[in-house]
Formats: sequence, C-alpha cells, structure tokens
Amino acid sequence: MTVIAIDLGGTKSSAALISSEGVILIREKVEIIRKSGTFVSEILQKQIQKLYSLAQRDNHKISAIGVSVPGIYYSATGHVWAPNISGWKDYPLQEELQKILPEIPVKIDSDRAAYILGETWLGSARGCQNAIFMAVGTGIGAGIMVDGKILRGHSDIAGAVGWMALTPHFRTEFTRFGCFEYHASGDGLARVARDYINDSPNYYGLLRNPIPENINSYDVFEAFSANDNLAEQVIDQAIKMWGMATANLISIFNPEMIIFGGGVFGPAAQFIDKIRLESEKWAQPISMKQVRIAASSLGSDAGLFGAARLGFLTD
Amino acid sequence: MTVIAIDLGGTKSSAALISSEGVILIREKVEIIRKSGTFVSEILQKQIQKLYSLAQRDNHKISAIGVSVPGIYYSATGHVWAPNISGWKDYPLQEELQKILPEIPVKIDSDRAAYILGETWLGSARGCQNAIFMAVGTGIGAGIMVDGKILRGHSDIAGAVGWMALTPHFRTEFTRFGCFEYHASGDGLARVARDYINDSPNYYGLLRNPIPENINSYDVFEAFSANDNLAEQVIDQAIKMWGMATANLISIFNPEMIIFGGGVFGPAAQFIDKIRLESEKWAQPISMKQVRIAASSLGSDAGLFGAARLGFLTD
Repeated sequence: MTVIAIDLGGTKSSAALISSEGVILIREKVEIIRKSGTFVSEILQKQIQKLYSLAQRDNHKISAIGVSVPGIYYSATGHVWAPNISGWKDYPLQEELQKILPEIPVKIDSDRAAYILGETWLGSARGCQNAIFMAVGTGIGAGIMVDGKILRGHSDIAGAVGWMALTPHFRTEFTRFGCFEYHASGDGLARVARDYINDSPNYYGLLRNPIPENINSYDVFEAFSANDNLAEQVIDQAIKMWGMATANLISIFNPEMIIFGGGVFGPAAQFIDKIRLESEKWAQPISMKQVRIAASSLGSDAGLFGAARLGFLTD
Repeated sequence: MTVIAIDLGGTKSSAALISSEGVILIREKVEIIRKSGTFVSEILQKQIQKLYSLAQRDNHKISAIGVSVPGIYYSATGHVWAPNISGWKDYPLQEELQKILPEIPVKIDSDRAAYILGETWLGSARGCQNAIFMAVGTGIGAGIMVDGKILRGHSDIAGAVGWMALTPHFRTEFTRFGCFEYHASGDGLARVARDYINDSPNYYGLLRNPIPENINSYDVFEAFSANDNLAEQVIDQAIKMWGMATANLISIFNPEMIIFGGGVFGPAAQFIDKIRLESEKWAQPISMKQVRIAASSLGSDAGLFGAARLGFLTD
C-alpha cells in the first residue's frame, strides 16, 4: 500500500509517494514564493495530480493522501489556519483537496501533529504510545501523543507550549509570542541576544558586528561556537527554559519520550544532555527517570513521514 | 443500577451506595486513626461487605465497586502507592478487594482521577470531554480528562502538576515538593508565609502570634480576611502561581474547563476571578477565551461521586 504525503512549509511544499514500510518511492519539492492561499492550494492540487499519475504508471495503489500544514487543522470543519499563508485564516483545504481524487481520502493535520506521528512511526520515538515532539523553530509548538492518539483539545489548538509561563516577571511582549517562545524559540534567541546587548554597553564581541536588529539564531550559535560570552549567556538561559519546559511536560504527561526538533535542533541538538540535567532539577522524579530525551532522528523529513503516517492511520 | 463507591482519604474512608442517576442511597464514614496498610484494607473490605448487605436488603443490584485512593493506582498491576498509608508503596489493593465479592468488578483509581470523573459526571464540568481538576490541598495534583478519558501517562503518574516549574530561580526545597506545590499548596501558603516573616523583622501582624513553625493555610486565610498585609502578599503570590499554572494547562490542553478543588478551594474559591485575570496574561489567547474556570461544585463529595462514576464506566 502507498500514500501521497505532503509536507507544506512556509517556503516550500515537499511531496512524496511513501510505502507502508516507510520507503520514499518518489519525492519532489516546489518552492513557494507567492504565498496567496489559493495559489498554495493550487500547488498542492498539482502535486497530488502529478504523484497520482506517477503512482499509476508504476502500479502503486494509493490508499490515502496525508497533508501536514504549517498551522492548525480544525478537524470539525476541515478548515486550516496558517499564519504565514495569506488568506488561510479559516481555509476549506480538506474540501478543496478532496475534489481532486474524490475516491481517495485526504487527511490533514498540523505540522506539530505530523512531527510526532513521523517520529513515533519511524524515528526516535518508534513504537511509543506516549511521546512529545517539541518543535523549536521560528516559534515553539508541541505535537503530543497520548495513548497512541494526537492530543487535540477542545478545538484542535492543544500543544501551544510556546505560551508556557516560566518566569513570574511578566512582560507585555509575552502577549505576542508566549513567555517560553519569547525566550527560547529561534527568534527568541535573537531577541534575548538583543536584550543582553542593549544591557551591555561594554560588550564588543561578535554579536556587536551585525546590526542588532538583524541578529538571528544562527549568529548566536556561531558566536557561541567561538566562545563569545554574551552568546554563551543567551544559550545558557535557553537551556534553562528548554529544561524547565521539558520538566513540565514530563510531570504533566509522564511520557516515554520527548523529542526536540525544528530548525533550532539542528544546532542546539548538542545541548540535549544539558537540557536533561536542567529538567532533572524540576520534574517529578519518577517520571523523570522513565523518560528518554533525544533530538529528532528524522530531521527535516519528520513532517513528510508524519503526513504519510496520517494517511495510513485508520480513524 | 447501583454501585458501591468508596473515597479513601488520609484520615477517613467514605463509602456509599450510589445509583446511576447519581443519587446517594446510603452513605457511611469510618475514621482511620491507625494507618497501617493492612488495617486500612480491612476497613475497605468491611465497608464493601456492609454496603453489599444493605443493598441486598433493599433489592439494589450492585454492578461494580469503585474506589478512589489518596495516591497512585498502577493500572497494569492493580497495585496502589499512597504516601500517607504505611505499607502502601506497591500494595495489591485490587486483588485484595476483588476477593470479597469475586463476581463484582472492583475498579480503583487515584483521587485526582476520581475528582475529574465526578465533576464531569455531576459537577461543574458536567458533560465536558476535555477538562482538568486542579486539586489543591496539602499538596497539588491534577486529574486530567482528554477526549473523555483520564490521562494516565506511561506508568499512571501523569497529572503531577505540583512539580510545574514556574520561576527560573531554583531552590533545593523544590526537589521535595515541586516548584508550584512549594509555593501554592496548602502547606505551601504556610511555607511562603514563614519565608516572608523571616524576611520581615519589622512585621508584627497576626501571623507573628502563632509560633512560625505552626502556621498553616487557615491562619493565612484568616489573617488575609483581617487585611493583614503579609497574608495579602502570600495570597497575591499564590494567585500568581495558580494563574500561571492554569495558563500553562490551558495552552497545553485547550480544555473546555478547569476546576479548582481540594481543601484550599474552599477558602480560596473567592479568588477564582483573580486567577482567571492572571491566566489571561499568559495563556494562548484563543484557548483562553474558550475555557471556563470555576471552583468545584461537588466539594468534598467529588471523590465519592468520582469513585461511583469509575464503577459505572465500561472499560
């Protein structure tokens, strides 16, 4: 059995034919420059048609189409909210994609749901029934699996862990991102670096050179690698935040595994041991002993494999 | 249909015959003075026998026995861990109670699971599928319902929210209770009051009078009612902690409802509106709008009704 899997991101759409053993038979990628919602929908429709033709040619029977979207999938309506695609505030994506091949079910879910589906199927958390994918990129969100099912909440927006409150000192900036995301997302690392630079008139290190407004998380990791002390402080506070947030999820969920992924892990995967040490200070001690913490083993393919898994799952 | 429901606490065991409509037909209470594990087990066995006889006499058919325990129920083994009952580190309670009436299933769960089962059946959260009971007593734990089922985690210790990290400033005392419980449980209020008194040599208010070591949460609430400014500070920081923890659960679970109960709510039920205001600063804004926050409407009967609900649920 084979599915069409699509991992839609902010700047590209990856699509593949994937077998039930997790083998990628054919894959392709389309860059998305204009981001109008109808245009993006057309790209997805074309990818479905193209992969379906290739599957027909090679005698692969397609049982479903799985799609991961960079936002929220509302399971009750089949609509999608995606902040980086214009017009996708409440977009009827399921209905639109279902029209292409009416006899083949189209299943959509959020990227964070796809990540944990991918990792529990073929990645670091293979076989786990209770596991969490902490996606740290521009923002922070979590894909949470409870007894083998995705935690959706009352209206499909569960897993908004970037909003976790981790320090009692409230700042109005938190209302835009959430406290955890403010400090420890990719953009957060750059924000904290800028805060520290503003507070350190005598700092003349590596992060002084870019215009402070242009600092990004890669600058911070590069300066860290060169032993820049301000970058070290930024990373230290991020490790504390990642560790506290991990501890909270461990105490609340008693999971088998927590996986760090997204663009920041990546370069931050080197800090997994330190994150674990920080967690151990805070978490419920029995749950702490039971949990494994690791970086994503599927990397940038987690969403694609998750979309495939979505296709293979029966409701 | 009728069940035998037992709510075992640290100092008493409440038992009742409860109908499928939630009517208490007969109830009784036994105080527990000696707390050896085998003695407590004997009390439960006698309560089961007594209520079964009374049910026979009145022609009530008993379909199950539901038991709420003050600790953790390990569903894989049927064993129980209860910190305040000596010898119940890994006690085979299910097996022991099942012997009394072998043909009637005995179902056991933790008190926090029972609380949310009771509240979603007959209380503040009636009919909710995604709801959380925040039990604030001597300690803090949460009963969490996800899509109508209790969140258990990998080994039945999910919901240990008292361990939530809410301030980056770690203290070694947190390793005994967890950060949230350290600050905002019943014992936590007393602890924080003592900390504040030690830091305030010029404080001569109401909480100076008891020996500081003997302060308990009721002293704090009493002093608060009399406008004692140190007690007000203690309550203010607790409201902040309760609000932050509530916000975190809202962002993570996107629940329909969060219910505060346990001995502290009670007197702290007057602060629900302030807790909501604090939560609104931190939580994912859409989830925040969707959630209701309220005090338990079943009060000290939440565990008893939850034990009954446990009996009525089919696996």
